[in-house]
Amino acid sequence: MHKLVLIRHGESTWNLENRFTGWTDVDLTATGIEQAKNAGRLLRAEGYEFDIAYTSVLKRATRTLWHCLDEMDRTWLPVQHSWRLNERHYGALQGLNKADMAKQYGDEQVLVWRRSYDTPPPALEPTDPRCERGDIRYAGLDPAQVPLTECLKDTVARVLPFWNETMAPAIRAGQRVVLAAHGNSIRALVKYLDNISDADIVGLNIPNGIPLVYELDAELRPVRHYYLGDAEAAARAAAAVAAQGKG
Amino acid sequence: MHKLVLIRHGESTWNLENRFTGWTDVDLTATGIEQAKNAGRLLRAEGYEFDIAYTSVLKRATRTLWHCLDEMDRTWLPVQHSWRLNERHYGALQGLNKADMAKQYGDEQVLVWRRSYDTPPPALEPTDPRCERGDIRYAGLDPAQVPLTECLKDTVARVLPFWNETMAPAIRAGQRVVLAAHGNSIRALVKYLDNISDADIVGLNIPNGIPLVYELDAELRPVRHYYLGDAEAAARAAAAVAAQGKG
Repeated sequence: MHKLVLIRHGESTWNLENRFTGWTDVDLTATGIEQAKNAGRLLRAEGYEFDIAYTSVLKRATRTLWHCLDEMDRTWLPVQHSWRLNERHYGALQGLNKADMAKQYGDEQVLVWRRSYDTPPPALEPTDPRCERGDIRYAGLDPAQVPLTECLKDTVARVLPFWNETMAPAIRAGQRVVLAAHGNSIRALVKYLDNISDADIVGLNIPNGIPLVYELDAELRPVRHYYLGDAEAAARAAAAVAAQGKG
Repeated sequence: MHKLVLIRHGESTWNLENRFTGWTDVDLTATGIEQAKNAGRLLRAEGYEFDIAYTSVLKRATRTLWHCLDEMDRTWLPVQHSWRLNERHYGALQGLNKADMAKQYGDEQVLVWRRSYDTPPPALEPTDPRCERGDIRYAGLDPAQVPLTECLKDTVARVLPFWNETMAPAIRAGQRVVLAAHGNSIRALVKYLDNISDADIVGLNIPNGIPLVYELDAELRPVRHYYLGDAEAAARAAAAVAAQGKG
């Protein structure tokens, strides 16, 4: 039996401003920092220990992990970053206000962009100053690997190689793993682990900063999963995520 | 030509309280955090880029690195921790006040403990609650690798394998390396790189939080070295380190 802990980053400045974020590298708010610390306190209180931590190359996830490890007094744990764990790329919507977009295009269109499994938002132009292809952290990648937009299906396609090639082998080898990542990179992983249908994944929301524990059998099939701490608080937080972007 | 950047952690709570620290995992002071951020700002202003960062398993070095990377907007860089980069173990002196020890044993004895190349301070008993052998971060080591005391010669002996097996190959492969570590683990490395004699290393002090740049040739022989920023400030800070523990 293995335990895998998944943590969505704490509230970011653009969560607070209700803006589409994607690969934009915004930081945590004071609330987000507190959520991250609280995740660490929950893990410490429950006696969790880890051998390795994974996170994206975006600072809201990295900082969430750092605060979490700090509260656990485990700042010395190895941390591996991967762009494959980044948030879903939000294309030309990155930086725009969710409610403004809902007013302009209607709730339904925004819900499709936010939650459709296979319809991506409009793509960024490669010449758009928001395009990440010139960002030094992606310099080692083929430019075509740096998306101009993504639907969740695209996110699944680039998260799974990291699961298959890095995380799953580590877990099979007995390493205790914590992942600090993003709403959609975690949804991508959970969809795969729980074999959730393309239709049903639309309704699944991951709250900020609450450790989500997956118990996995020897073949890494999920046995059960649960949030640490107050279950009702987790449900309320997930409902709040679902309500974002309403007009 | 390679550039290697060495950073001693910012001021720690026990630097401030003038206590022998060694492997005790004390945190940075507010001044120490500011020194760490300033190191990051200096590196950013000078256009330094890194491919990998190394640090110890002690939080004052890790946190210095984190603040530094944060100021450089490089929180996504890979970081590798090693116990081999820890501060020199201070044996039974860990936690005791430097000035008290100077009063009790005399300046000369304290200077021997602080700076002698091959005379370690009195050893900790393995049953001493200060002994780190039960610490989870060293659980993967042979207990005999976790020191009960060290002289600088001992520190050199356990730092060099990390240099030879990890840092030097990375640098030779073209990786740009930053190290955030401790006064004595950096002295150990500098002694080796510059081939400083056992006698002369006694007079070498590393100031807190000021990036020390080593330019190395293709065989990793130092061509020159310098502190970033205000050279006089670096000299004053090194002199202050040398003056610690005076009665």
